[in-house]
Amino acid sequence: MSVNEMVLGIDIGGTTTAFGFVDRQGALLAEATIPTEAHESAQNLVFRLHEKIEELRASLTPNFCLKGIGIGAPNANYYRGTVEKAVNLNWGESVNLVELFRKHYDLPVAITNDANAAAIGEMRFGSARGMKHFIVITLGTGLGSGIVVNGELLYGFDGFAGELGHTVVDPAGRVCGCGKKGCLETYVSATGICRTALALMAERLDSSALRSLSHDTMTSRDIYAAAREGDPIALEAFNVTARILGMKLADAVAHLSPEAIFLLGGLAGAGELLFKPTKKYLEEYLLRTFRGKVALLPSGLNDDNSAILGAGALIWHELKV
Amino acid sequence: MSVNEMVLGIDIGGTTTAFGFVDRQGALLAEATIPTEAHESAQNLVFRLHEKIEELRASLTPNFCLKGIGIGAPNANYYRGTVEKAVNLNWGESVNLVELFRKHYDLPVAITNDANAAAIGEMRFGSARGMKHFIVITLGTGLGSGIVVNGELLYGFDGFAGELGHTVVDPAGRVCGCGKKGCLETYVSATGICRTALALMAERLDSSALRSLSHDTMTSRDIYAAAREGDPIALEAFNVTARILGMKLADAVAHLSPEAIFLLGGLAGAGELLFKPTKKYLEEYLLRTFRGKVALLPSGLNDDNSAILGAGALIWHELKV
Repeated sequence: MSVNEMVLGIDIGGTTTAFGFVDRQGALLAEATIPTEAHESAQNLVFRLHEKIEELRASLTPNFCLKGIGIGAPNANYYRGTVEKAVNLNWGESVNLVELFRKHYDLPVAITNDANAAAIGEMRFGSARGMKHFIVITLGTGLGSGIVVNGELLYGFDGFAGELGHTVVDPAGRVCGCGKKGCLETYVSATGICRTALALMAERLDSSALRSLSHDTMTSRDIYAAAREGDPIALEAFNVTARILGMKLADAVAHLSPEAIFLLGGLAGAGELLFKPTKKYLEEYLLRTFRGKVALLPSGLNDDNSAILGAGALIWHELKV
Repeated sequence: MSVNEMVLGIDIGGTTTAFGFVDRQGALLAEATIPTEAHESAQNLVFRLHEKIEELRASLTPNFCLKGIGIGAPNANYYRGTVEKAVNLNWGESVNLVELFRKHYDLPVAITNDANAAAIGEMRFGSARGMKHFIVITLGTGLGSGIVVNGELLYGFDGFAGELGHTVVDPAGRVCGCGKKGCLETYVSATGICRTALALMAERLDSSALRSLSHDTMTSRDIYAAAREGDPIALEAFNVTARILGMKLADAVAHLSPEAIFLLGGLAGAGELLFKPTKKYLEEYLLRTFRGKVALLPSGLNDDNSAILGAGALIWHELKV
């Protein structure tokens, strides 16, 4: 009988790094997290991770052979194996994370950004199984995107394809952390919908539960909760978010002609409050040729471990098995 | 000695259909045109074309073996071999042009839209040789686009990927022939720049040579000629066109991360008047990651026969030789 095989999936975030062992079918065999320390070097994070990984591995039933390591990380470049200019990780211009892991593991190691990992996770283990052309949008603090074309992640010439969060909604619009103005993620993201709620409260006179919250304490969950109670500001905040998202997704369809678009991440948890108006506006802004042909779908993966599964899927895909 | 090989490239336009024999290196061995008659059926056009093709073929030195037929046509669908809802061809919902040609020729036949054919022509015979990721924008009556990803034309799920002319510049903007508002091609195209000149004359008081022209008679060449004389309305029309094009090309880069973007077609003939400000605005709107990395280039093919060469390149590419 052949030995069972597994890969290691790692999701490096600004505050927490999660990892776990993933089998060929997408079952998560074991998982754990460690804090990502601010100001810690990448070398040190990898050193600490290695210890914890080996602890977790020792706790597994034997008979599992580790075949490779997949990593999802912000600003990761698949071609170069690097994390470049990641704002929340104090790693400077560029760190080659693949090399650092290969000092500990003589195995195939691949890295990509979190949204790309989510896309490949959806393709291998989730609701995009069998799809060759689709887009994944992650709605967290920012807006990330992963694009699959002909069954492969789209990296482009430089490795940074799929930055839909920084397409332009309004060139004179909201200041973005990237230094530009009016980027999509300043409107459509967990933080973007809070900015929209503030702007609506400034414009309108409707009473709203959100008026008792400071910007510092307000979250997209507060807006979701208020919208469910019929709060007019909160409902309109979802409507504005959906209109801008629908318009820019129509642009993405004009570029890529995908079969489906998946909305993932915190804000997508609002369900029909977000999906229904986004679908309506998407159809409205689509070129006639594309109308009624593009599905707007939630993730088929459990949100809690989708990042680890995505990182695992990345390396399974690489191993071509 | 082996027999020389050639393919047939056909460019079907609303008023003229051009065709020619193209060898493996992109030399045009012979070419001819016939009028595309309004209200003529596709069957009849193909029948007439077949006669003229055989006449031209008979005039060639022997020793050339015809290997396949490539067709560029508006609203063509590569997957289905069809031309669908082409406004300037009175062919109804859908005509399978590949089948019609295969009644006359027992050879591989492929079809795609004109901008896609231009992209593959650029890749095989022009300035995109060796590139794996690039975009071709054709600036004629409308704005067409062909996208190459991983060395292959991007068709997407439904076969109509690459419709950048119908991405949204302003959802409350200019009425587009497609039924939507504010599409890119209503601003950036030979007709778009004329609309911009009209709008500028309405807004401003500068004297301008363009004020003596009616909209019916004005062409982008008039605006080009006036701009070269320093006409302030014409110069600003180019500036506005370049700003909008630069902004939407930055969006395209955020999707695709190409190595280069090619501007082709009539309006691209304005040279530095269009390229210089477009490059400036493109850099300004690009996410920092992409700045200085994307070339903005003119076609490497002779404009007079690039459409035939593109159609020929399509079928050479298909033949994998």
